[in-house]
Amino acid sequence: MAQISVSSPADFHVHLRQGKLAALVTPHVRKGGFSLAYIMPNLKPPVTTTAQALAYKAELEAIDPTVEYMMTLYLSPDLTPDEIVKAKEAGIAGVKSYPRGVTTNSDGGIESYEMYYPVFEAMQRVDMVLNLHGEVPSDSTTNTHVLNAEERFLPHLLSLHKAFPRLRIVLEHATTRAAVSAVKACGPTVACTITAHHLALTVDDWAGQSFNFCKPVAKYPDDRAALREVIKEAHPRFFLGSDSAPHPAQSKSTSTPAQGCAAGIYTSPILLPLVAQLLDSFGALNRLDGFVSTFGRRFYGRDLDIPQKTQVILRQTEKHFVEENYSGDGETVVPFWAGKEICWEIVDRH
Amino acid sequence: MAQISVSSPADFHVHLRQGKLAALVTPHVRKGGFSLAYIMPNLKPPVTTTAQALAYKAELEAIDPTVEYMMTLYLSPDLTPDEIVKAKEAGIAGVKSYPRGVTTNSDGGIESYEMYYPVFEAMQRVDMVLNLHGEVPSDSTTNTHVLNAEERFLPHLLSLHKAFPRLRIVLEHATTRAAVSAVKACGPTVACTITAHHLALTVDDWAGQSFNFCKPVAKYPDDRAALREVIKEAHPRFFLGSDSAPHPAQSKSTSTPAQGCAAGIYTSPILLPLVAQLLDSFGALNRLDGFVSTFGRRFYGRDLDIPQKTQVILRQTEKHFVEENYSGDGETVVPFWAGKEICWEIVDRH
Repeated sequence: MAQISVSSPADFHVHLRQGKLAALVTPHVRKGGFSLAYIMPNLKPPVTTTAQALAYKAELEAIDPTVEYMMTLYLSPDLTPDEIVKAKEAGIAGVKSYPRGVTTNSDGGIESYEMYYPVFEAMQRVDMVLNLHGEVPSDSTTNTHVLNAEERFLPHLLSLHKAFPRLRIVLEHATTRAAVSAVKACGPTVACTITAHHLALTVDDWAGQSFNFCKPVAKYPDDRAALREVIKEAHPRFFLGSDSAPHPAQSKSTSTPAQGCAAGIYTSPILLPLVAQLLDSFGALNRLDGFVSTFGRRFYGRDLDIPQKTQVILRQTEKHFVEENYSGDGETVVPFWAGKEICWEIVDRH
Repeated sequence: MAQISVSSPADFHVHLRQGKLAALVTPHVRKGGFSLAYIMPNLKPPVTTTAQALAYKAELEAIDPTVEYMMTLYLSPDLTPDEIVKAKEAGIAGVKSYPRGVTTNSDGGIESYEMYYPVFEAMQRVDMVLNLHGEVPSDSTTNTHVLNAEERFLPHLLSLHKAFPRLRIVLEHATTRAAVSAVKACGPTVACTITAHHLALTVDDWAGQSFNFCKPVAKYPDDRAALREVIKEAHPRFFLGSDSAPHPAQSKSTSTPAQGCAAGIYTSPILLPLVAQLLDSFGALNRLDGFVSTFGRRFYGRDLDIPQKTQVILRQTEKHFVEENYSGDGETVVPFWAGKEICWEIVDRH
């Protein structure tokens, strides 16, 4: 059977939650083959200060100290240029911007970027990364909906890049051909994460399938093709950010019309085998190392001094199935592809 | 409170199912204010012969004899021109075409129309209506998906109309601006049904909400606007066909990733109040009578000799809520807008 080695896989977009759920899911980063996780700040309450981010990092390290956690702050009106300087000195890597109301715990998200220009100015000066959830809120009066919400966000990306050409920006979890083109058209300071599930799903897959529902929603087959193509061409500004987003199993199922399903797909525990299988499916297995490690690490300046550089060995397998769920201490989460056959497994790391 | 009267409401697209489920849902046609129901033939096995259609009609009449049931056959290779003549003589009104695999019990659906031309020729000769489920199957290699499946079907509608200009055709449950335009561009033999729920929902409403999932899926806000506009302008070839489609409650909920949700929204028991409320919401309450009765009856030749012409009186109300579900004999179905306030109620019929 085929075997492949990957250097120190890094996931540049992960949700690890809080409390009991964090205790359950945090070890899954390593289980999924990864030794670096870039952590999203949309907790309750959101991580808006350096002190909160450091406390959260300590909480995660107490659960699993073998993974490097890169921390972020939640962009909000409370964030000041002074706090940015302080955060940078404390090793916090980025600031995440959520448009208001478009995903999990984004009620405090932004409505307009101009008020944040002093913060962005400070971020550019100290070299902190701006992570963008690139969707505008739905609005039926302007025909804005979950399918075009990302494309309509792209002018914001371009104007931010123009206003702050040295500010490093990551368009997170891109789902459209338009987003791929927009990021490509930007300079070297603008990069883009792509999730594993958006390489697999299209709109047909979440129609009536709430476990495949996430934000941004998976788009059309041609958009999925664009994500696959940019990985095949090994574009160095496109790399993995899984957006692995665990939710309690009951909040993903819909048993009544009043119960909306939480947006999010959980890939952490199977991430590296999943990405290998997907890249293999469209002829890009030879791009695995760049996509899941080198490109992201280089953009984030983590390529040279990897503290513990590890090789993760994957092997093709048969009759291996994704777990139906993971449980612990009263929490249950259901992974992507639950119960489905997966053709790669991690056999060693050293 | 405002009051309004409607003459003999007619629903030109209804699923009443079989057995216990039929016993539960058939009386809901009248409960919802309707005295005529145009019955879909996608049973197991599908209704493909005159004899089956008549037996099914007798089954429905045994449950509720107060409603007029117009019957249809399921288009399949078994259907012959001779059977069309026989069906017409037996009072069967139409033939329903399902593209293969796009909705409930459509595995026996069609792949190409040309092989059916002799049947259509016979239908045109005896004046039987062709009812089209207007979607092409999804195909990622051609970027065909649930959102553009209807628009890509429209060339089939136009070529059928061109080949059989005197054949009366109904494009069922239209969801797009493109479909409205295509039907308008056709001659007087081509009409179009619109459901209640497609006047309410857009893609955002079924994202993560399986009880709002149906086929064709609700489209973008601009498409919904087109459906509303054509009702506001009282176009006589656009009329109500609810596509009310009951499914057992458990088949609508998603408790595991493997459990896909059945496509269909159940509106029968609240249909006339729901349509009144929706039309009122976009300033078209004065079009109610045309949309739910006159236009469809005229197209189907049921406008003159209504057996028992009834007036249904609706009144605006407050603090009135849609039932959470309806149960009977082990079957449970959940209506559209379950638990939600509805502002109109039926107060009388005479």
